[in-house]
Amino acid sequence: MSIDYQSLAVKGVQALSPYQPGKPIDELARELGLNPDGIIKLASNENPLGPSPKALAAVREALDELCRYPDGNGFELKQALSARFAVKPSQITLGNGSNDVLEVITRCFADSSSEVVFSQYAFAVYPLVTQAIGAKGVSVPAKDYGHDLDAMVEAITDRTKLVFVANPNNPTGTVHGAEAIESFLDRIPARVLVVLDEAYCEYLQGEGYVDGLSLLERYPNLIVTRTFSKAWGLASLRAGYSVSSPEIANILNRVRQPFNVDTLALAAATAVLGDEEYLQRSCEVNAQGMKQLESSFGEMGLEYIPSAGNFIAVDVGERAPEINQSLLEQGVIVRPIAGYGMPRHLRVSIGLPEENARFVEALSHALGTLPETESGRGV
Amino acid sequence: MSIDYQSLAVKGVQALSPYQPGKPIDELARELGLNPDGIIKLASNENPLGPSPKALAAVREALDELCRYPDGNGFELKQALSARFAVKPSQITLGNGSNDVLEVITRCFADSSSEVVFSQYAFAVYPLVTQAIGAKGVSVPAKDYGHDLDAMVEAITDRTKLVFVANPNNPTGTVHGAEAIESFLDRIPARVLVVLDEAYCEYLQGEGYVDGLSLLERYPNLIVTRTFSKAWGLASLRAGYSVSSPEIANILNRVRQPFNVDTLALAAATAVLGDEEYLQRSCEVNAQGMKQLESSFGEMGLEYIPSAGNFIAVDVGERAPEINQSLLEQGVIVRPIAGYGMPRHLRVSIGLPEENARFVEALSHALGTLPETESGRGV
Repeated sequence: MSIDYQSLAVKGVQALSPYQPGKPIDELARELGLNPDGIIKLASNENPLGPSPKALAAVREALDELCRYPDGNGFELKQALSARFAVKPSQITLGNGSNDVLEVITRCFADSSSEVVFSQYAFAVYPLVTQAIGAKGVSVPAKDYGHDLDAMVEAITDRTKLVFVANPNNPTGTVHGAEAIESFLDRIPARVLVVLDEAYCEYLQGEGYVDGLSLLERYPNLIVTRTFSKAWGLASLRAGYSVSSPEIANILNRVRQPFNVDTLALAAATAVLGDEEYLQRSCEVNAQGMKQLESSFGEMGLEYIPSAGNFIAVDVGERAPEINQSLLEQGVIVRPIAGYGMPRHLRVSIGLPEENARFVEALSHALGTLPETESGRGV
Repeated sequence: MSIDYQSLAVKGVQALSPYQPGKPIDELARELGLNPDGIIKLASNENPLGPSPKALAAVREALDELCRYPDGNGFELKQALSARFAVKPSQITLGNGSNDVLEVITRCFADSSSEVVFSQYAFAVYPLVTQAIGAKGVSVPAKDYGHDLDAMVEAITDRTKLVFVANPNNPTGTVHGAEAIESFLDRIPARVLVVLDEAYCEYLQGEGYVDGLSLLERYPNLIVTRTFSKAWGLASLRAGYSVSSPEIANILNRVRQPFNVDTLALAAATAVLGDEEYLQRSCEVNAQGMKQLESSFGEMGLEYIPSAGNFIAVDVGERAPEINQSLLEQGVIVRPIAGYGMPRHLRVSIGLPEENARFVEALSHALGTLPETESGRGV
């Protein structure tokens, strides 16, 4: 008897489509027969600066220990986070990127009888982890591409266990200020956990900045998640964390895999927290690159969503798939976000000035060489 | 109103005790004020040789890429595994250690209505991942510390979705030969998935060796898991994998986190697969060290469980906790396994000859200095 193993999977998994990551440079090179050295990747919101020298040095020093299991408690990294952000080590849960923490939170507090609330256009991992456990994802229509916080409050029912808020949000770059977030939290029942995903918070400059960590004492149902993959420049190594009450962290730490953050990631993340100069430079390069792209889009007559992150979503019109294909053929990888319900937009990560320029040139070429249609030029 | 957040967690998680890893050297040094350089760790079945030079070189070469996300598809590593083990890349699911794969398998195929069968004294992760999803773990009493395969077949009910078989088993080191495993698989209904955990298979020498991969074609319900953490010497980096039918791998790959294996782990694992000399040396050092410990235990009149892995469980009697404490104070970390229901045993990983000798000396000291009781010397 032949068995359909798909039918044996749990229900949520049967219908699951996996996360689609940005295309790696080597993969594009293989597919199109291009020289990898000539390809630029602005598809995964990576830090274009290359790694922090302090992180690199820490990794090199830890190489002798490759045979040993990581410190499952992440003692040194928790100490460093604790010192930098004035939180207690007992409030921290480490993850294999913040993706891992988001998944662990969901698995700890929701099951097939639960509802999980998030915004339309929010980070794809929220609906994916929700579906994988068979919970009901409640996607709340966005307002001007951003979270409609009022509507999210209204979406809460007796079954709601979790609400995910990305601030700034990916892939739209929208952000809410302190007042809006606090007013939102004031209206969430204490039995519902709010996950404030601050993966891009380091790029927030000046006013409008919300530091989720400062809200933890007032809102015991709040969990703040952060990552070393963006402004800290360690995407390859997979280190993220959440900060919450010690009580919630204690629950998360039961389900977290004991060695979910590896030795080199622990060493690099601990070291980079002490590299203030790197963080500053990352933010400056990002701010400059953002202006560069905004002004180019303006000149090209393309609409874009103002972004508080290290990426920007630009409306290139109905022909986005063809334009994306043209960019790929020119060796430029950006991120189509039709999967997010934004088929006219491409999300472009902010690169180095020369990378941004090369993307703009390739985009102009793509737009110019493709036959125009009325809606094909954005606007 | 104050909320008890523990009560908000899903049921399985509320009662969960996390996995207890081996104590890291730095932690013991901090706790007892010892010099870390004087401590030896034989607690986590790590490879005592230090990393493969080929793996190290590959990691160094990949350091420029720290800012980039890993290749979520693990193209190069799957190619290397495919070439070495004559399986198709589409049969492979990569994991953050095999721990991750074991968890993903459980989450894909079992839920709170399922039963999961494993053996008494089997690897602690099986009951943990089972409980975390609220499934019922069915622990089948062991026979001479090994899996009672007949009883495991009998334990299967209509609700059984998964059976875990560790071969060799950790922490007992027991192993079943090809005939026993095949006869077992012949009796498992096709709708029940069997996970054959071969984390220690590289240490199996000569006859008795079962290569789970060779059974995949005959048993479409079979999933074989392996790791780079033991004989391949990469515990710090967290790389493991499963091999199954492409259909099952397709399901697992939906739930696997997209970047669960990091860039340096991918590079190191790919490189070490080509370091045959390292693997050979690992196995030789292990075989010699095993003889060394067996003969010392014999001289000391201690019973041990003959082991096919890179560790050995020795019966030190009722005073195992005190003996373990004495070992720690002497700077020797081994693994108490009372949590596995084996309170008289300590599990010792095979180290370098001088580490094994130092452990034996420390153990003699501990046994000699502690007041003897009739059962205190393990018979």
